[in-house]
Order: sequence, then structure tokens, then C-alpha cells
Amino acid sequence: MKNVIGARCTVCGNLIEATPNITVCPRCGGIMDIEYDYDYIRAKLTPYDLMDCDDFSMWRYKAFLPVEGKSTLPKLRVGWSPFYKAGRLGEVLGLKNLYIKDDGINPTSSLKDRASAMAVVKAEEAGKSIIACSSTGNAASSLAGNAAAAGLKTYIFVPERAPKGKVAQLMMFGATVISVQGSYEDTFRLSAEAIDRWGWYNRNAAINPYLMEGKKTVALEIAEQLHFQMPDYVAISVGDGCTIAGVWKGFKDLYAAGFINKLPRLIAVQASGCCPINTAAAAHTTEWTPQPENTLADSIAVGVPRNPLKAIRAIEESNGIPVNVSDEEILAAMRLLGRTSGVFAEPAGATGTAGVKKAVEMGLIDKDASVVTVVTGNGLKDVNNAIKAAGEPISIPGEMDRLLEAFEKKGDPHR
Amino acid sequence: MKNVIGARCTVCGNLIEATPNITVCPRCGGIMDIEYDYDYIRAKLTPYDLMDCDDFSMWRYKAFLPVEGKSTLPKLRVGWSPFYKAGRLGEVLGLKNLYIKDDGINPTSSLKDRASAMAVVKAEEAGKSIIACSSTGNAASSLAGNAAAAGLKTYIFVPERAPKGKVAQLMMFGATVISVQGSYEDTFRLSAEAIDRWGWYNRNAAINPYLMEGKKTVALEIAEQLHFQMPDYVAISVGDGCTIAGVWKGFKDLYAAGFINKLPRLIAVQASGCCPINTAAAAHTTEWTPQPENTLADSIAVGVPRNPLKAIRAIEESNGIPVNVSDEEILAAMRLLGRTSGVFAEPAGATGTAGVKKAVEMGLIDKDASVVTVVTGNGLKDVNNAIKAAGEPISIPGEMDRLLEAFEKKGDPHR
Repeated sequence: MKNVIGARCTVCGNLIEATPNITVCPRCGGIMDIEYDYDYIRAKLTPYDLMDCDDFSMWRYKAFLPVEGKSTLPKLRVGWSPFYKAGRLGEVLGLKNLYIKDDGINPTSSLKDRASAMAVVKAEEAGKSIIACSSTGNAASSLAGNAAAAGLKTYIFVPERAPKGKVAQLMMFGATVISVQGSYEDTFRLSAEAIDRWGWYNRNAAINPYLMEGKKTVALEIAEQLHFQMPDYVAISVGDGCTIAGVWKGFKDLYAAGFINKLPRLIAVQASGCCPINTAAAAHTTEWTPQPENTLADSIAVGVPRNPLKAIRAIEESNGIPVNVSDEEILAAMRLLGRTSGVFAEPAGATGTAGVKKAVEMGLIDKDASVVTVVTGNGLKDVNNAIKAAGEPISIPGEMDRLLEAFEKKGDPHR
Repeated sequence: MKNVIGARCTVCGNLIEATPNITVCPRCGGIMDIEYDYDYIRAKLTPYDLMDCDDFSMWRYKAFLPVEGKSTLPKLRVGWSPFYKAGRLGEVLGLKNLYIKDDGINPTSSLKDRASAMAVVKAEEAGKSIIACSSTGNAASSLAGNAAAAGLKTYIFVPERAPKGKVAQLMMFGATVISVQGSYEDTFRLSAEAIDRWGWYNRNAAINPYLMEGKKTVALEIAEQLHFQMPDYVAISVGDGCTIAGVWKGFKDLYAAGFINKLPRLIAVQASGCCPINTAAAAHTTEWTPQPENTLADSIAVGVPRNPLKAIRAIEESNGIPVNVSDEEILAAMRLLGRTSGVFAEPAGATGTAGVKKAVEMGLIDKDASVVTVVTGNGLKDVNNAIKAAGEPISIPGEMDRLLEAFEKKGDPHR
């Protein structure tokens, strides 16, 4: 990896060699960060080269990624997700230049595919044929799917409360799923013990610094899809902090390599019922306090975030705006995305958009500002909450008179 | 539309002008087919032009599509879905050259987006701002999503038995959903009456010949993704017949325009519990008989197909192979796609693959043959059947000893 200098601890600054299976800092236990040689990257890749690149996946940015030149790249087409000018949504929100980055359009239907595709490459570089994690959500399903395509085995630990649908998706991808009769803590503990005992590759975000490098590709794509003319703001939902930290890393990498000459401000959006990172960021401190997990947006219901330091620093460095939104505001944003733009988001996927709406209403961002809102996961992932958001259809017998009555009652113009 | 000669009736041969709102033949009621000027197309587009085309959506093939030059193209990124060499699945099936076309990766997660995107363009050309259809499945959700992105209204009629999740998806896209207390027939009848009464644009497949033209783009993509070196076989599931007819039309168009010099044979796959089209095709007749709808693959459970003639002719003309598969074989194919390839298909989406497996086992296709299997819809569309297919996880308390016991009992090597 000639483009990589090493892995540096975000706490004590310790610099170590970036071997494929590093986790936390061997000196202090802090989370590591991959450090690049930007002169080398600049010599290898320019925006003009990208214009000729016909790899429309996250791997078009290999020069910015910590993978060995000889590594086999994953088979599933992760990344290069759709990017839309959202004129009608912008009108509703009062923004002239609003864009949607729809990362629900990925092989397993969430942004997490970017991290899992990276995990698969690094596991293979480490000579491992088994990858493991504990999770019930998008991280687990993306790992299972991307590993299946590469022919790697996965062991995934879930708490017994995990929804059957999500477990079925894991089983379908051939994961060995261990449903632990106990809490999430019990589940995590057993997974850690098993990973340690059998030497499996560890795909637990935060402690594996490579995963964030995969996630940062969403930022690289946003920049390229805007022809490297950067927006004023990028809005994204925040759970354990890895995704927003990845987004920020991506923009910083592009800036350092001379691809862009402006950094956007981040709009960090959490659910009001679970916002430990935003609470700290708003107080301009990295000291955060655990919170209960009171939100229906399960993918970001993280009361004890695993990557708070990188996330809070990202918000701070970008002169970002922490915004918290209620569950009602999240459901309303799901409806807005669907009705104005044909984008179906899961609750956490629409949370960024809910934050943009609120920030405009609070006068925190200007109506002339250019804003990108990232949809992180597909609404089909959580049909129950879609039902909650969507409302009820007109229900009538199959007669024209009854249809006319129903339209009149509803005030529906039907033309 | 300088590339279009007109619309010709598939029954009586009547040729009429291809106005945006044609439905069935005004003379005999037969289904119409769009006819092209291939010399004109050949002069407008070559395979070399496509190498420079940076529109990675179905609209890269505009020269082959019946849309006005000045028409606004839809906003959602429909098409250019992933195409994978399926080495591991091929090994299991005993095929050296097997490919997967994953059309579950589309804005509303099914191949039907191709038809609905076309419907939106044609509705706008017809000066309509409302589109209607009766359906509970992928046609309805794709119409609602694509219309929402274009700012058109949709009225969608569903029978009251429609699953709540699917109705929620429609409501989320802002469709006016009319749930009819009665059978599907009652629903269809009311929708037809309402479409007629208010002059809404009619998106009911089969009778609107443009929809098939949208669907054919999946064939154009398969050809281009194989660099116009055609495979021996293309396998696809068959319900009302519109999709397989569209696929065949796409290949024939490419052949007529000189883009390819070989036509693939179609493997037409239906569920054993509902296979009126294959039953007729196997007997080399276009006379078909209605059948009950006994299959869990709801998207192809069509006992009274709406486009049998075009479908049966497509199978016949391609020297195709009709194959019927049981529900168990469909569930097994879902597992196979997931475990070997990281592709999560709904039952109808995996039916083509089930047919390929069976055709190889029956010795109908050679092990050296090149085969493309089309996945028509995403597994997240039908989580209940995924649960049925996937099996149960290992369930234990959070203790290493119990994990060891479970692994031993299961014979899991965990390494």
C-alpha cells in the first residue's frame, strides 16, 4: 500500500504499520485512523483520470483506499449510488439547491455495504476465510452479502430480540447466525470471545479502522457527482459515529490531495430520543454521556456510541451543525422523500433530510445554500415503520358511486 | 419519434400511428407492438457510441426507445443494473459460464421500474398529469415511485387482500390508493371505469405497448455488458408474459440493427402451480388455458396472463425452453443465489435461476453453454418467504461452552 503511511492513534498519536488486521492502538487502546501520502495519491490519480474511469463502483477511488494493489476486489457492485437534484423536495424545504445521495441503492440496500466490501478485501489480505461481527442491522446483512459473493464464511452474533426478517436475510446469505438468549451486551461478549478464540477477521466498526475508509467513498462520490464543486452543507444521520466520521475523512482526503478547494459543513442529525454525540458536539466537548435509546430509527439508536471521538471531531472541524429531530419529524421526512422524489428511505435513512428541514426552519442554514442529504438505507428494510408513516388508503366496495363519494369526502380532485 | 414506424397489431397486423396513449388495436382489440426503422437507429447509434455514453441508465438506449426527442427523461436512475459473472453459483449448477443480471437493484427494487419509467414519459407526452393502474405488486410500487419523482399523480387500485407493506410503499410515494372491498376482478373493473371516466393515463401492462419497450432495456444491457458477445441462453421467470416478451423484443431489436449477430434461446420459467404460458409453449400452440394460482411466487402467480401471445411467440421464435419449477425449487434457488453470490431475490426473482438448475439437471442445456439468469426483484420485497426459505439460526445462551456444543452438534467447523 504505497499510498498509506500507517495507522495513527486518534488518542495518543502513536503511528503503527497498517497491517490488514489492526484494531485499536496497541499502546493506549484508542481508535486508529489510516494516514495517507497525498503526494503519492495526487501523482496516481487526478479528476481527469476519473472522467475516463469505467469502474462505476466505490473501487474507482482505489488510489484513496487502503488496499494492496494485488488484492482481488469484491464482486458485488457497491457504491456509485444515485445522486439526484431534488427540485421538488427543495421547493418544499425552501432550498434552491438541494441534492439527494441515495445509498439505499446498494447490493444489500444500505451505505454499510461500503464498509463490508472493504472488510472482505482486508480479511482476504489478512489470509482469513472467516469474518465475524455482532449486530442485528445493516452492518450484519451487508457483511453476510459481501462475504458470500467473495466465498468467505461469516459468523454473526445477534441478540434473541433481533427481528426475524433481518435474521432471515443473514441466513439467506449463508451466514452462520448465533442467536444469543440474552442482552446485546451478552451477544457482543460472546462474539468477542469467539473472534479471539478462533482468530476470525473482526468486522466490528470503530475498532477496525478500515471500515471507515470504505464508508468515506460516499463523500468521494458526492464530490465527483458535483464535478468537484463542493456544496455548502452535507447532512447525514448519526448513530455510532463511524459514518459521519467516514464522510468527513473522505472530504478531507480530497482536499488534501487537491481535488477540491472547499470543505462542506456537516449537518449531523440524531434522533432527539438518543443523541449523545450531538449533545457533546453542541457543547463543544468530546466528553459525552450515554443516553437511552428512545427512537424508532433503529439503525441510529446507539446510546453508547463506539466512535464518538472521531464523530465529534468531524462535526467540530467542519464547523458543523448538530440537529436533533423527533420520531414524528423522521416519519414526516420519509413521506417527503417518497412523495417529492420517489426515494423510499428507512427511518435512519430519512433522518438526515429531517435535519435539513429543521435547520432551514430554525434559520440555521440559508435558503440559497447548496445542500446534499444522504439517504443511508432503503425503506424496504423496515416496512413496519413505513406503515406507521404512510397512513391509510381509501377503502370502498367496487362501485363507482362509492368512489365518487370517497373522493368528495376526501376533497380529492382526481384530475 | 423518427425511429418509430408505428404500432402494429399482433393479431390482425393493422398498423397505426404510435401516439402516446394507444392501447389495444382499434380494429380487432389485439395487443399492439411498436415497430422501428432499424436503418434510422443504425445511423443514430453504434456500439462504439455506447462506449462513450456516460448515461448509465436505461435511457442510454434512447435510439431504441419510443420517446420523443424533446421529452423530459425521468429523474430516477432506472436500469444499468449490476451484471455479475457467477463463478460460484455456476460451479454448484455445473455451468462454466453463468451470469447474473440483478434487476432487484433499481429505484423501487424490481425490473418493473423500466416499464414505469417509460409510462411516466409517455403520460407526459400525452399531456396527462395522472397515471393509474390496478395491481398490488411491483408494477404499482414502481409506478408510484417513478411518477412521484416526476411530479405526476397516481391513482392505484388494489384488492383489499393486498399486503399492508406493499400498500404502505404506495402511500409513501404519495399514490392515492383505493383499496377495493372485493376480488381482483372487482378492483380491475373499477379502475378501468375510473380511467375511462377521468381520462387518466393507463399503466396496465400488456394493453399499453410502450411498457414492454421499457422492459426490453434489460436485454439491451445484458448484450452490452457482455460486449455484444451473446450468450447461448437467457433465463427469466414468466407471469403475465410482458417481461419475457420485452426481453425477446430487445434482443430482436439489437439483431435487426446489427449490434449482435446471434440471438440467445430463452429459458422461460414458470411455477409448476401456475404455468399456463409454458403449458401452451411446450405444446407449440398459442391456445392456452387459465390455471389456478398455486405458488408462493406472487409476482408470477398469473393464472389468466394478459400477454400470452407475445410471450408464447417469444419462446417459440427463440427456440426456447419452457421449464416449470416447484415452490421448493424456488426457495432453494433463493438460498443458492444468496449463499453463492450475495444476491437476495424475491421468489419470482429467483425463479429463473431455479429453472436454469432444473434445465441443467434434466440435460436440456449443455454444461459448456453460456447462460444469463435475470433476477427480477429484490428479496426485501417479500420477507415472509425469505424467512420460509432461510431456516433457523443457532439459538443458545451467551456462554462459550454452549457455543462449542452447538457447533459440535451441527458439525460446524468454525474455521
